[in-house]
Amino acid sequence: MSQFDYLATHSDCSRPGVTRLVFSERDVEARAVLKDWMRQAGLTVREDVMGNTFGRWEGSDSGAGTVMTGSHSDTVVLGGPYDGALGVVGGIAAVNTLRKLGFKPAKSIEAIMFTTEEASRFSIPCLGSQGMTGFLEPEVLDTFKDENGTSFLEAANAVGFSAKTAQEYADKALLKNPGDIAAFVELHIEQGPALEAEGKDIGIVEAIMAPSLVRIKFTGKGGHGGGMPMSYRNDPSLAASELALRIEEAALATGAPETVATVGLWDQQPNIYNAVPRSVLLDIDIRDSDKARRDGVIKKTLDAAEEIAEKRKCGHTKELKFEYPVANCDEKVLTAIQNAADLVGAKSKRMISRAYHDSAFMAQIAPTAMIFVPSKNGLSHHPDEHTAPEDLARGVQVLALTLAQLAGPSSVAASDKSEL
Amino acid sequence: MSQFDYLATHSDCSRPGVTRLVFSERDVEARAVLKDWMRQAGLTVREDVMGNTFGRWEGSDSGAGTVMTGSHSDTVVLGGPYDGALGVVGGIAAVNTLRKLGFKPAKSIEAIMFTTEEASRFSIPCLGSQGMTGFLEPEVLDTFKDENGTSFLEAANAVGFSAKTAQEYADKALLKNPGDIAAFVELHIEQGPALEAEGKDIGIVEAIMAPSLVRIKFTGKGGHGGGMPMSYRNDPSLAASELALRIEEAALATGAPETVATVGLWDQQPNIYNAVPRSVLLDIDIRDSDKARRDGVIKKTLDAAEEIAEKRKCGHTKELKFEYPVANCDEKVLTAIQNAADLVGAKSKRMISRAYHDSAFMAQIAPTAMIFVPSKNGLSHHPDEHTAPEDLARGVQVLALTLAQLAGPSSVAASDKSEL
Repeated sequence: MSQFDYLATHSDCSRPGVTRLVFSERDVEARAVLKDWMRQAGLTVREDVMGNTFGRWEGSDSGAGTVMTGSHSDTVVLGGPYDGALGVVGGIAAVNTLRKLGFKPAKSIEAIMFTTEEASRFSIPCLGSQGMTGFLEPEVLDTFKDENGTSFLEAANAVGFSAKTAQEYADKALLKNPGDIAAFVELHIEQGPALEAEGKDIGIVEAIMAPSLVRIKFTGKGGHGGGMPMSYRNDPSLAASELALRIEEAALATGAPETVATVGLWDQQPNIYNAVPRSVLLDIDIRDSDKARRDGVIKKTLDAAEEIAEKRKCGHTKELKFEYPVANCDEKVLTAIQNAADLVGAKSKRMISRAYHDSAFMAQIAPTAMIFVPSKNGLSHHPDEHTAPEDLARGVQVLALTLAQLAGPSSVAASDKSEL
Repeated sequence: MSQFDYLATHSDCSRPGVTRLVFSERDVEARAVLKDWMRQAGLTVREDVMGNTFGRWEGSDSGAGTVMTGSHSDTVVLGGPYDGALGVVGGIAAVNTLRKLGFKPAKSIEAIMFTTEEASRFSIPCLGSQGMTGFLEPEVLDTFKDENGTSFLEAANAVGFSAKTAQEYADKALLKNPGDIAAFVELHIEQGPALEAEGKDIGIVEAIMAPSLVRIKFTGKGGHGGGMPMSYRNDPSLAASELALRIEEAALATGAPETVATVGLWDQQPNIYNAVPRSVLLDIDIRDSDKARRDGVIKKTLDAAEEIAEKRKCGHTKELKFEYPVANCDEKVLTAIQNAADLVGAKSKRMISRAYHDSAFMAQIAPTAMIFVPSKNGLSHHPDEHTAPEDLARGVQVLALTLAQLAGPSSVAASDKSEL
């Protein structure tokens, strides 16, 4: 718990919120702390060109591959202390526990900290894991800018990562031997209300929803809020209001509780009470556990934007910023998690992840699954994000036992799983 | 024209926009320039405790009172070069023209620059003219803050205005002898499309709409945009979208083209695509030439906010930030403007002002009217705000001739109106 508290002090907002955008001063500090904790846990630390950081525990069987676990250390603006941090701090703790208990793994084990899972700075998620798994389109490192107009490339260079081009970042981050990854497991808070509502301790994640981001901008001629009669207006804020309600309607219309759509960002200009707006830019997050169903909501959103713009004589632009597939988890890894949960007496359930994670990309190249612990009131990306200490500890226990099963005891060491 | 261009260089944004918030560095520079121009026009400059600035031309008849003209030099964020500036620069130019032509006024004439007509910094308009006319509630100088949490009192002190309390500002700004004001005339761009649409050169403003500002904040529990199912949400952005459409409906429902309502400010938090919003604050500008009709739209807005919040299980707060009366103009001043317009062969029309102005407060204590010139496409509070040079010049001519009639020729000087 003190580690989570300490990590949360590396933040650009006051507690209980945590704001730690990738490559900010606070993120650079947090990275140093996490590398330090990896070393204290006896791990050998290496860092790739994008800042993905690996703490390695060499197994006895050098040809048997590597079991990986990890998550991200960056946060959204005004996020909480556990989103991402649990999987990094907890991953190191799980490995440390296994070492202290005298466990000797056959396969090597690595605790990972991925660079920028959150899209909060560069409007695109999972840059680090996309880079490692070959999903990264290099140009996004140049073309996606933060609110100050800085690209990932520039921001990474500014904090000491030295690749000179977006292509060089992508080439060097790509895992050279993905077949060596025996399994990947990510421990994370649920970020939703299901575990708490059903009185479960552990979620065993068998699929990760297909996320997408749609950006719509409506424009109008603006004008003075007093001077411009209603009949002369083509107010983009009213077009955006209509669209927001149509998107809600489209998400509800699938009838599936897995369909979610959120108008998360609303940027109105000039945004002063006595001026008719000239533009409203909306970022719309649309996800589903079923890609076709999600794509249906995307289509309704784009069609509605066009129809509303025409009706209100507004200009509009539409852009599908990203859309990723559904990630399916691996049955062997799921079984290991199930065994681990049973071993500690945890009430568990199979579930899907509504949030995306670095696991969504790792699952495309390696046997992957996730372990969820409950989020109080389902809250995350929120200063009130909370998970009870005993739930955090139970998650780390389950992760440790899962890693032990997946890595296997060394045949040359005098230890076996029952000691745990 | 070069004066407007030069004034517009004192701006915190790039041209063609102008951003000059009250007591910013740029505003302090602009004030120095305007005082300089007043002195160059032969006027005696004085400044009151709030920064209202007066350039006085002493008339021959010291007991006959003073004819005043003026407007404001501050702008909205991303405004244009003429809103306010025309009435200050044009007021000085009109007086200067009369002097150069050898006119000797019986009554004294003053060119005024009012402090912060725009509400862009402190969310409340016309602080200077409210102070002069006794409408100012002193506490607003303390309680209304800019986006950095600075009050008018603090900002004024920081640029050298020395009153120690809000009450002292209000007491000292109050005109001690309002009965001395024989007339007030304000030259301004229309900020609406009527003159251009009807092919008129000059608007003779017989009333100023009753403005009001309603602030509504919706709140919800927020959450992760992927993790939080639609059925668990109480999204304040969707409540705000419904309200925006209901406000439009209420404004259109009066059937009067004078009714306008604008959701100008939309502040959504945390405002990131993958977080369900936790709060949306709306600033809503509602005006009408008929106070009762306006108050009806305010009531519908407040009632709809309550109904929507209840339906969507959102929290909400409602606040009527300000509401001012309709200002009626003075027939004697209107006639003087009409005569002046006829004299220069301008096509004029009587009209109401949809925007409010310092004149709205001056009209409460002195015979007042306004002169409008056309706004291209009706645009104002906008970088594309434009008025043709010949329309600006015609406005200044009409103002000069109006002032000459209202001040009257000196009985001791050898000049008369026909020389103009």
